[in-house]
Amino acid sequence: MRLLLVNPNMTVAMTDKMAAIARKIAGSRAEIVPLTAQRGFPYIASRAEAQIAGGIALEMIAENLDGIDAVVIAAFGDPGLAGARELFDLPVVGMAEAAVMTAAMLGERFSVVTFSPLMTPWYSDCVEDTGLASRFTGVCTPETRAVDVTRVVTDLRGDLVDLANQAVREDGADVVILGGAPLAGLAPEIADDVPAIVIDPISAAVAQAMTLASLQVQFAGRTCKPAAKSSVGLSPALAEIIATETVQ
Amino acid sequence: MRLLLVNPNMTVAMTDKMAAIARKIAGSRAEIVPLTAQRGFPYIASRAEAQIAGGIALEMIAENLDGIDAVVIAAFGDPGLAGARELFDLPVVGMAEAAVMTAAMLGERFSVVTFSPLMTPWYSDCVEDTGLASRFTGVCTPETRAVDVTRVVTDLRGDLVDLANQAVREDGADVVILGGAPLAGLAPEIADDVPAIVIDPISAAVAQAMTLASLQVQFAGRTCKPAAKSSVGLSPALAEIIATETVQ
Amino acid sequence: MRLLLVNPNMTVAMTDKMAAIARKIAGSRAEIVPLTAQRGFPYIASRAEAQIAGGIALEMIAENLDGIDAVVIAAFGDPGLAGARELFDLPVVGMAEAAVMTAAMLGERFSVVTFSPLMTPWYSDCVEDTGLASRFTGVCTPETRAVDVTRVVTDLRGDLVDLANQAVREDGADVVILGGAPLAGLAPEIADDVPAIVIDPISAAVAQAMTLASLQVQFAGRTCKPAAKSSVGLSPALAEIIATETVQ
Amino acid sequence: MRLLLVNPNMTVAMTDKMAAIARKIAGSRAEIVPLTAQRGFPYIASRAEAQIAGGIALEMIAENLDGIDAVVIAAFGDPGLAGARELFDLPVVGMAEAAVMTAAMLGERFSVVTFSPLMTPWYSDCVEDTGLASRFTGVCTPETRAVDVTRVVTDLRGDLVDLANQAVREDGADVVILGGAPLAGLAPEIADDVPAIVIDPISAAVAQAMTLASLQVQFAGRTCKPAAKSSVGLSPALAEIIATETVQ
Amino acid sequence: MRLLLVNPNMTVAMTDKMAAIARKIAGSRAEIVPLTAQRGFPYIASRAEAQIAGGIALEMIAENLDGIDAVVIAAFGDPGLAGARELFDLPVVGMAEAAVMTAAMLGERFSVVTFSPLMTPWYSDCVEDTGLASRFTGVCTPETRAVDVTRVVTDLRGDLVDLANQAVREDGADVVILGGAPLAGLAPEIADDVPAIVIDPISAAVAQAMTLASLQVQFAGRTCKPAAKSSVGLSPALAEIIATETVQ
Amino acid sequence: MRLLLVNPNMTVAMTDKMAAIARKIAGSRAEIVPLTAQRGFPYIASRAEAQIAGGIALEMIAENLDGIDAVVIAAFGDPGLAGARELFDLPVVGMAEAAVMTAAMLGERFSVVTFSPLMTPWYSDCVEDTGLASRFTGVCTPETRAVDVTRVVTDLRGDLVDLANQAVREDGADVVILGGAPLAGLAPEIADDVPAIVIDPISAAVAQAMTLASLQVQFAGRTCKPAAKSSVGLSPALAEIIATETVQ
Repeated sequence: MRLLLVNPNMTVAMTDKMAAIARKIAGSRAEIVPLTAQRGFPYIASRAEAQIAGGIALEMIAENLDGIDAVVIAAFGDPGLAGARELFDLPVVGMAEAAVMTAAMLGERFSVVTFSPLMTPWYSDCVEDTGLASRFTGVCTPETRAVDVTRVVTDLRGDLVDLANQAVREDGADVVILGGAPLAGLAPEIADDVPAIVIDPISAAVAQAMTLASLQVQFAGRTCKPAAKSSVGLSPALAEIIATETVQ
Repeated sequence: MRLLLVNPNMTVAMTDKMAAIARKIAGSRAEIVPLTAQRGFPYIASRAEAQIAGGIALEMIAENLDGIDAVVIAAFGDPGLAGARELFDLPVVGMAEAAVMTAAMLGERFSVVTFSPLMTPWYSDCVEDTGLASRFTGVCTPETRAVDVTRVVTDLRGDLVDLANQAVREDGADVVILGGAPLAGLAPEIADDVPAIVIDPISAAVAQAMTLASLQVQFAGRTCKPAAKSSVGLSPALAEIIATETVQ
Repeated sequence: MRLLLVNPNMTVAMTDKMAAIARKIAGSRAEIVPLTAQRGFPYIASRAEAQIAGGIALEMIAENLDGIDAVVIAAFGDPGLAGARELFDLPVVGMAEAAVMTAAMLGERFSVVTFSPLMTPWYSDCVEDTGLASRFTGVCTPETRAVDVTRVVTDLRGDLVDLANQAVREDGADVVILGGAPLAGLAPEIADDVPAIVIDPISAAVAQAMTLASLQVQFAGRTCKPAAKSSVGLSPALAEIIATETVQ
Repeated sequence: MRLLLVNPNMTVAMTDKMAAIARKIAGSRAEIVPLTAQRGFPYIASRAEAQIAGGIALEMIAENLDGIDAVVIAAFGDPGLAGARELFDLPVVGMAEAAVMTAAMLGERFSVVTFSPLMTPWYSDCVEDTGLASRFTGVCTPETRAVDVTRVVTDLRGDLVDLANQAVREDGADVVILGGAPLAGLAPEIADDVPAIVIDPISAAVAQAMTLASLQVQFAGRTCKPAAKSSVGLSPALAEIIATETVQ
Repeated sequence: MRLLLVNPNMTVAMTDKMAAIARKIAGSRAEIVPLTAQRGFPYIASRAEAQIAGGIALEMIAENLDGIDAVVIAAFGDPGLAGARELFDLPVVGMAEAAVMTAAMLGERFSVVTFSPLMTPWYSDCVEDTGLASRFTGVCTPETRAVDVTRVVTDLRGDLVDLANQAVREDGADVVILGGAPLAGLAPEIADDVPAIVIDPISAAVAQAMTLASLQVQFAGRTCKPAAKSSVGLSPALAEIIATETVQ
Repeated sequence: MRLLLVNPNMTVAMTDKMAAIARKIAGSRAEIVPLTAQRGFPYIASRAEAQIAGGIALEMIAENLDGIDAVVIAAFGDPGLAGARELFDLPVVGMAEAAVMTAAMLGERFSVVTFSPLMTPWYSDCVEDTGLASRFTGVCTPETRAVDVTRVVTDLRGDLVDLANQAVREDGADVVILGGAPLAGLAPEIADDVPAIVIDPISAAVAQAMTLASLQVQFAGRTCKPAAKSSVGLSPALAEIIATETVQ
């Protein structure tokens, strides 16, 4: 099985880190094919940026579909997810959605802990879009807005542990999701310090992508697919997929 | 007052028709500055297409902001709306959202009637994103999926009237929104045949854009704005706005 | 265009202040026809008072409909709104609803800041009745219940600014509505001190009333209108409207 | 125990019928004190009429509180209920709310069957105001709008039974509420013909009023009570209650 | 009338205390038939325990139905309620649900105050299962998890009063439910110290059971009843009821 | 990895069939350890039966935990799931919940198609308990209540295909879940005949159980675990687990 790990951010170090975690989760079950965006933003942190990066993600997927069994959009906030799911005939998962659905099978109420209040509106919208708002206790962050995403795992580690404890004790969460690619891999390191299950979204997303692929459901013939459409200015691979009529 | 009427679709005839309606609504209050997408799709009809066209809409807005008081995203489904609202320091309205909020001030429960079942999933999502699902009686469409968007107003007129009546009598709607740019301007023509208030979304959107602009609320200093961010491959105007630090 | 500005409170000074703001918003577009309740309460602050004042508002509207294009119910809490909308064949807006719908087109999550905890239950109900509870971060007030409504704008100005900041920073609001007629006109004065968009409900309501009137939707023939009904003890104008059969 | 049975409609025959049912439910536990509105409408059927009749109900209660232990507002739609509950220091129940809460303790999902589509919007709003929309399968009515409320029990009996069966078999209701004062007393007569529990709202309301009174909860000192307020033009008894300061 | 008071906990002292309160509420209207679980747990405090104890409650009811008019499941959290309601042809109420529905007829927003954070997840789920989450301000508890249920009424009295006040002043509750059998009977004792209506769930449940029984609704013929089913290992009385075909 | 496949129904043939499907999904990744209930019901079809069978499921799990990495409760309706998840320190999934969460990662709106209207109330409750009601288009079934569960796959195949098509075309589902153990394995057989993704719940549940186990999250130290508790009459293994204090 081959999984496309699409990082819609431009930061290669982040892709490398996530790919390493993905390979650990995949083991011998799947080959990980990592991709880093060649345009867009170093690190997506808003709905405006996600709008643009989501389109870039669609192109990245279209250009690299060959031999792929499932796709992971490797950014919490899931840029391009709804469109990709509609368009491509294979499983596509997002880090936020996969973390949320996984959390919902491990506990009753989940919190998202992340590194900056700048992420809160976008992440909140994203969780609410899953439909699981009634089981969501909110996003918890440190107060400081200015952060160096390459250092948050070390600089803010104590703060994040405290926030996770607060989410459990005050907000009633029994699962804590560590949201945002810069926190990839932190979950197992702090699990002993948090009185709840802690979820690493990239691990959850990779595991869910393999799960969905393993079910071998049939995508052909879905009426929910868009009708064929001409386009201008898209990458050729994406344009061709959008232009292809599916039988209905 | 100058309103930017951004058609994220590439069909100039559609822009012309909507601009004509917009000018009628605006009268002497506002100058209408219409724009048609130079790339993307003839007519957006899915979430995948909206993901891409929303990014194009952000660029169209950024490149034409000079002297503009408010922006109308002239496609039902509101591609790019959340990002645009976050990014630009002026009012931005979408056709679907404006129609829905207007409907909610004219009646208790609203329906969306449109020309093809292909639009239903995207339009439903869009209405639910406004938060007003509890007052929404659903999307009603003819059964035929293959449509010529340039002829739906004439070809399907009787069907659309029947669907509007059904939405009122069976689903309990007291306001009917005629969704989709191809139906622009139809509302007043069929109002006599529908036992409920009928809303033309482009009219609603233009009127709401002027309303929001007239309130002269202050956009500067909003903490919800994204932090400044470098980027690669965006149009220069959009890149510059995203790169500009706002005081917080 | 002529707008009826119905203050269901008996305080003439409040009507005068709101009429002045309304005229500034309306400019040359509309004539403002202000009315002050001749019976009822100096200042409505509860559901019981709103029940009674809402009936008074219906009478005030019925008696003054001649030549009117739209109605503003000029009290936050919108006494009589649902009934008026059902009964009269023209646009009727309420201050709370108009502020909420306007807020929902300017940002993602809105707060209501007001001057006394006595208002909280009624205002909360009123916002929830709009259907937008999922985008509402709650009512924020100072702790003191005993207030002089004629002085709250000066006496509590600092407190209100602090509450607005707290709504933005702690509750995640990106729009703040200053609820309650005693706060009419305060929004632009404190806009510089609040890191979010600040909305003045009377301005929003007047602007929305003109917007709805400008759309010239057709009210005749709505099946949602009540059937003709005899009555005893109502003001003659209201009784006549209620007794008139509409064609359906 | 003495229960005030406030019919905010002016139809004495309706009051008499409901009082008879109430006396049967109350038996020796409570004396029923029936009141019929002296002004307002023969039969309330809309939100506009309920706005006015709700104010009348508040006056009827205030004028007759002496020696009363609980109040029943004897109209489905519950005109004046929220205000009455806030204002008076004793239990106040409405026919719709009492029927809904009772239904929710007898089954999982309830339907409201009534005699005319004219009632649907108001009844739907009323049920949704209870907060139990997620357990509500909707209002079912015959198609005919013009009805003689004095004859619906006989004329429409077959239709109502059919609608109740449809609510059970198609909509999944396991409790059916026969809404509207004209249907008072019909429930036990058709119970054999409906494969679900059938609720008579006046019976439910009287039983719930006695229940709440029997619990002897303490109303004094509630902070949710409105502050004392002067008024003009109210009936003296109501004005006095509203003008009385409660200790907080 | 005879009411079965089923305590699915094994603590006889708790049954005795609740039976005494029940007899006071029932007066001469009903005979109270108390039962204490012979297996299971001293005091149920989790979903796992409720799963098991709910099955025990079904057996206790089945074995003691003879001559019974209504059943009270005398544990906050309502173990076995949904199943019992479906299975037995008489009214069955739970302490939590009855308290919540009663609260919803006495005020607008209710809080649950209880003695330990260990109860919070289960009680929250239970309230949300009623469908009334939108009127629920949450569960308030002291911080200490280790409690002696036989002494909480005395040891924690001050804390519980403080929590009730906080629920009213900070969370906006106008009704406070004292949840959990160990707090049975405390409500009237602290009513003077809480600025809201205070509800004793066992009183509410007993009163509601009598109310539902007094309505004499017809349970026979409900299509929502399970089909007849053979079983192994159940108590004979329960097995027989489950094996009995009902006419549909 | 070893998965416990707990069939809380007593029908061995059903366990065998599900175990065969489970083994196919698990391949070499996991050993399947199937268990069939020794008491309870041949086939659970109601909330009452699920109450009892859920307790039996807890005992079956407790007695067979040794060497197990994750548990599948192999009945749609998920008897005992919430309690098991709270109690045991390993992943526990239910067939309905796993199917629903999987569906939510493959499409936007899902339907449940099953073989008898007798299942509808219980299945609906179960889906709503996941929190995803807003993405659920409802349960679709043939009309006939009397079914032979061993033959539904063959006898009703055409009906089930028709219902799935109706769920897609009329209700807007883009994923169809074939609910109920008697339909295990049918999904791939009818996938060509349904214009949407079709999910086999036992496959989804087994895949999700392996997914959750592979994430190696830490269960120890969760504050959501019940406190240690003595018990009477439980199976020894379950009693011991409930009696064991966890460190918090």
